[in-house]
Amino acid sequence: MEITQLDIEEAHERIKPFIHKTPVLTSKTLDTISGVDIFFKCENFQKIGAFKIRGGMTAVLSLPQDKRKKGIATHSSGNHAQAIAYAAREVETKAYIVMPNNSPHVKVDAVKGYGAEIFFCEPNQQAREKKLQEVVEKTGAAFIHPYNDHRVITGQATAAKELLEEIPSLDFMMTPVGGGGLLSGTLLSAHYFSPSTLVYAGEPEGAADAILSLKNRRIEKAPFINTIADGLLTTLGDKTFAIIREYVKDILTVSDEEIIEAMRLVYERMKIVVEPSGVVPLAALLKNKHLFTGKKVGVIFSGGNVELKRLGEWF
Amino acid sequence: MEITQLDIEEAHERIKPFIHKTPVLTSKTLDTISGVDIFFKCENFQKIGAFKIRGGMTAVLSLPQDKRKKGIATHSSGNHAQAIAYAAREVETKAYIVMPNNSPHVKVDAVKGYGAEIFFCEPNQQAREKKLQEVVEKTGAAFIHPYNDHRVITGQATAAKELLEEIPSLDFMMTPVGGGGLLSGTLLSAHYFSPSTLVYAGEPEGAADAILSLKNRRIEKAPFINTIADGLLTTLGDKTFAIIREYVKDILTVSDEEIIEAMRLVYERMKIVVEPSGVVPLAALLKNKHLFTGKKVGVIFSGGNVELKRLGEWF
Repeated sequence: MEITQLDIEEAHERIKPFIHKTPVLTSKTLDTISGVDIFFKCENFQKIGAFKIRGGMTAVLSLPQDKRKKGIATHSSGNHAQAIAYAAREVETKAYIVMPNNSPHVKVDAVKGYGAEIFFCEPNQQAREKKLQEVVEKTGAAFIHPYNDHRVITGQATAAKELLEEIPSLDFMMTPVGGGGLLSGTLLSAHYFSPSTLVYAGEPEGAADAILSLKNRRIEKAPFINTIADGLLTTLGDKTFAIIREYVKDILTVSDEEIIEAMRLVYERMKIVVEPSGVVPLAALLKNKHLFTGKKVGVIFSGGNVELKRLGEWF
Repeated sequence: MEITQLDIEEAHERIKPFIHKTPVLTSKTLDTISGVDIFFKCENFQKIGAFKIRGGMTAVLSLPQDKRKKGIATHSSGNHAQAIAYAAREVETKAYIVMPNNSPHVKVDAVKGYGAEIFFCEPNQQAREKKLQEVVEKTGAAFIHPYNDHRVITGQATAAKELLEEIPSLDFMMTPVGGGGLLSGTLLSAHYFSPSTLVYAGEPEGAADAILSLKNRRIEKAPFINTIADGLLTTLGDKTFAIIREYVKDILTVSDEEIIEAMRLVYERMKIVVEPSGVVPLAALLKNKHLFTGKKVGVIFSGGNVELKRLGEWF
């Protein structure tokens, strides 16, 4: 199954009543520092504080009524958990979220706040898949994967679609890459709505699986995991990788120091809160200014869900 | 001399090319928590990161050409210093800023960044007035006081004017109070443009001079100074006090813990950066919800110039 232009357009219309059309901000200071015309698509201001609601909502709304009413299940300790919990509440069904038992309280509370039921598991891949399997068998709920799902990718594509509608002649777009949902959606929107716009992704050096996968032409794990960009730790899926390997211009890696420096600029100059994963594309742009000099670049700030007590470690 | 409605209208037109029309944001979460319909006027997104550019620009533009070209002088370690430096650069004249020699490097650098000349003095009132006097005598520059100046008050009034133009039927407006420039300007805009809108001010318990001045019907110093709201440490001036005692509905004090709790909500839920002084009116609203239940309240976020390294102390 391929995702078509019409799929993205229809998904966008369907989810519009449930999401924010987030603002596109500019910053004279950041333009001056970089020598680039940057347009920031602020998904940190999105419902649940991240773009993930786009994919979650799209997937939930695509379920037929009889499936929908049995509830939605997923495993996630991050923004996808909140997205599914929120989306389920919007369509008045139940959300069953499998979370590792070492998840931060603040994230557990946020998911509970949307009325989801939480199932804790040991913090490893095997335990979480087993627990999810149990939940799905017990409840009959529909499983929605955080990124390796065409409905989810279709929904994530709507962020770049909005950005291209507002700023039509972008030379480049940039996103972070973790599992690849936002990146592959952005690639599809560029392909369909603005074929001359090239797409780069930013990736943390401490979770550098996507750049390796691209190089080796197969899905790879990161050589090591050590980064503050905690939304970008997962590997690509076969569905996201298929799109990424076909369309992405390149993947640029950044260190945690570069991520923090980008966050500092965003907090000090733009006065907005973006999470470490969310500034990775800006950090990649600033590190590779020469690629973008004088160009119009759309940068997606993917989310703003920061644990405030960690700010003291970073700044 | 009284400040007229026309003064404010003319000032607004004059400064418009130099300032941002800052956005008015809302937050479902904060409305739910408070039971109040809150409209946040985001002067943290203003040029130089604070409303002060409105008063500074108004004062500088009101100088005749021959005065203007001799330069502008002021004493300030805070946002007013940046405002004067920025305004002077905009009209292509010199700014002379007297700053205490213990000013944070980041603030000194910001003022230098706008091309101002800095004169350091001992960190006390006497030393700074003496140094300013010297600078003015030497240069012939025009002195612009941070708040006790009708031109400055007129400029600060334009923030509330914009807010009332966007949200016409506010029951209340709230500002912080330090020297009283923003508060007295807001009071005048309410008086002229929306007489049914009542204005409250929020003040830190650790710099509680305004509430005491109001009670004793004369300008008082704070009983003690101990607060993280470092933009609100000064006493009122005779010009700001005259307006405040006539029009203000009341002054509500808040503790530093309440200021931090309000900042936490703003960072976590609204994903924007506001400085401690800037959230004081929100903290006052949250502490006194019963006064505002079901009402439409305009809250001015006065600025967003935070020293990031202090975030770790607060959160």
